[in-house]
Amino acid sequence: MLREKVKQAVEILNEKDIDMWLTFVRESEACYDPCLSLILDTNITWQSAFIITRCGKTIAVVGSLDYERVHLTGLYNDIRKYVGSFKEEFIRILNELNPNKIAINTSRSDYMSDGLTHGMFELLMDFTSGTEFQHRFISSEEIVSALRGRKTATEIARIKAAIQMTEDIYSQVSGFIQPGKTELEVAEFILQKVTNYGVETAWEENSCPAIFSGPDTAGAHADPTERVIQKGHVLNIDFGVKKDDYCSDIQRTWYFLREGETEAPDIVLRGFNTIIESVQMAKDAIRPGISGWEIDKIARDYIVSKGYPEYPHGLGHQVGRSTHDGAGMLGPRWERYGNVPYLPIEVAQIYTIEPRLPIEGYGVATVEEMIVVTEDGCEWLSRPQKEIFLI
Amino acid sequence: MLREKVKQAVEILNEKDIDMWLTFVRESEACYDPCLSLILDTNITWQSAFIITRCGKTIAVVGSLDYERVHLTGLYNDIRKYVGSFKEEFIRILNELNPNKIAINTSRSDYMSDGLTHGMFELLMDFTSGTEFQHRFISSEEIVSALRGRKTATEIARIKAAIQMTEDIYSQVSGFIQPGKTELEVAEFILQKVTNYGVETAWEENSCPAIFSGPDTAGAHADPTERVIQKGHVLNIDFGVKKDDYCSDIQRTWYFLREGETEAPDIVLRGFNTIIESVQMAKDAIRPGISGWEIDKIARDYIVSKGYPEYPHGLGHQVGRSTHDGAGMLGPRWERYGNVPYLPIEVAQIYTIEPRLPIEGYGVATVEEMIVVTEDGCEWLSRPQKEIFLI
Repeated sequence: MLREKVKQAVEILNEKDIDMWLTFVRESEACYDPCLSLILDTNITWQSAFIITRCGKTIAVVGSLDYERVHLTGLYNDIRKYVGSFKEEFIRILNELNPNKIAINTSRSDYMSDGLTHGMFELLMDFTSGTEFQHRFISSEEIVSALRGRKTATEIARIKAAIQMTEDIYSQVSGFIQPGKTELEVAEFILQKVTNYGVETAWEENSCPAIFSGPDTAGAHADPTERVIQKGHVLNIDFGVKKDDYCSDIQRTWYFLREGETEAPDIVLRGFNTIIESVQMAKDAIRPGISGWEIDKIARDYIVSKGYPEYPHGLGHQVGRSTHDGAGMLGPRWERYGNVPYLPIEVAQIYTIEPRLPIEGYGVATVEEMIVVTEDGCEWLSRPQKEIFLI
Repeated sequence: MLREKVKQAVEILNEKDIDMWLTFVRESEACYDPCLSLILDTNITWQSAFIITRCGKTIAVVGSLDYERVHLTGLYNDIRKYVGSFKEEFIRILNELNPNKIAINTSRSDYMSDGLTHGMFELLMDFTSGTEFQHRFISSEEIVSALRGRKTATEIARIKAAIQMTEDIYSQVSGFIQPGKTELEVAEFILQKVTNYGVETAWEENSCPAIFSGPDTAGAHADPTERVIQKGHVLNIDFGVKKDDYCSDIQRTWYFLREGETEAPDIVLRGFNTIIESVQMAKDAIRPGISGWEIDKIARDYIVSKGYPEYPHGLGHQVGRSTHDGAGMLGPRWERYGNVPYLPIEVAQIYTIEPRLPIEGYGVATVEEMIVVTEDGCEWLSRPQKEIFLI
């Protein structure tokens, strides 16, 4: 799998006309650079450089004690080890290769391309001080976001498997939830299934699943509580698994019928259907080349046109080794998102679509679907929820 | 526990004459700032600032979706939430408090104080551009290393409990290992104990325990292999557990008697005893105020004086929430260690002492002990190994 990604990295370097991709890291167990998982399947302790060149050279500079484990990955053909000084060996390589552009692991907007700490950046500047290399550094965000975003067939298959498992678990949840159960009980039920399947949750277990029941719920990103599910509640679950290193991220919504009801009240249906329609409109518009913000705007404007407040987050994010997989997103042009909503959508990227709106007195209406971008549009990866589930 | 650390942080700010400690982070699940674990027990997604002032104010600026979970930690009295722009609320706080010095989460030498990515540093410079605050930033390494290093009574008790459990497991290992078993079998035995005790390994499971048998072993930081333990081998295990968030890190050494032997050969004893003597000499010299490199030098010089090569790493590191807990270390003045070997040792810090030397034809001799610094010296936390274990 990583060999596949390293090979893909070489192609991307050629496409982007960049000579060298340099990932500079240390003590990866303490502070992990998220791009490292694409090019190395072990941890390192001392200052280390992982270099991939457009000619296909793979070079590592590592502390002597890390040599063996990096060697065993089989990903780096040329491994230079040092004891006291990283700088010497590193500068020797730069002199040997004389790269024109050196893409380093830093980015303002894409947190997945921003693993270089500022202290390490300063060291890099020190090491190259007085050399012409210092003026050749650029951000590797273009490389990392392409490498992370453009899923190989193996990666797509793994994500499909994670989605399949998530949908299996959701179908069991429908048989379990009922008025009188607490959010925490539902969470425990789901976590037990995760354990039974021998996988992990897609993000930290405290809030995976996240469960939001009724009108007084906290909104996204909070942990399940002792709140008791009641008739007349809308219930929303946000959940995914990580299987073979790849994630799913799906939300589903239920309504708990009150005595005498045979379907959800109009106000609930109207809210839920507005969500479903906005998801479909966004899905229909996704195609390679369009910017993420344009897709976000379609769903956002539609929801607002129906009289609801706009959702306080982006419409969707990429999914891969992480649930929030960084780089290009379907998001509004807010300052906090930097340049990522402007990045063009590319073939083989995988996105969520997850608008949300409040239904006063009932709860939150939302679904979260996953799609993969194709040559001329996109395809569902999840089986989209079209009707609110009734209990 | 974290309330204890936040209170300690305020004392440290006063001691160091720093008005404000600012930890600026985003997407902590993707790229975790290791200092965050001292001041927050949840993850955050959007750009967030965690501020502690010398007056004892605790302020957080977080995305609206992260508000609830940060609120529930109970650690921040004043939580400002935002949707589109972090900058506005952040600058408002700086104007309200007008701090003279703002310590931020960056450091060249201490990886545990260096969680601010370079991309985030650039954002911070953008946000404060044109204000006088931009000239008031300093590194928080002094704060973080004091806060991390100076263990509270609760922290010391937790580390003692982790050490106790590690020693229990080691005593069971002695009954299990014998010639004919592979390194991997020994590792599996230990990992099963870790599972039984309901704890985690102190570092990643692939190399915890690390097991080095015989003359052809890889040296530190490599994973256990199919290598078969044989009579006449020296065997070294490096292992620890993480219990209640705190780690242990201890190494032990065995010798496998050949037919007719009743003790280890002289060459093995001489190597092992040189290690034990160097550990004792280092332990005797440790006291508050002395620099780590001076302690390293005592053990290093002694080992070299006995005709062995110097060990290719530092003599010891701090242990806490992480096995490699950063900041001041007992290490040589090598470029790669930056300023950390120069930092003065402080009361209530916990260090390992772990020199190593090769015994030609037999394997590696090493022990790793743990000590806590006291007012006038230091005390063993581990029960020191004084004789090589014979099987």
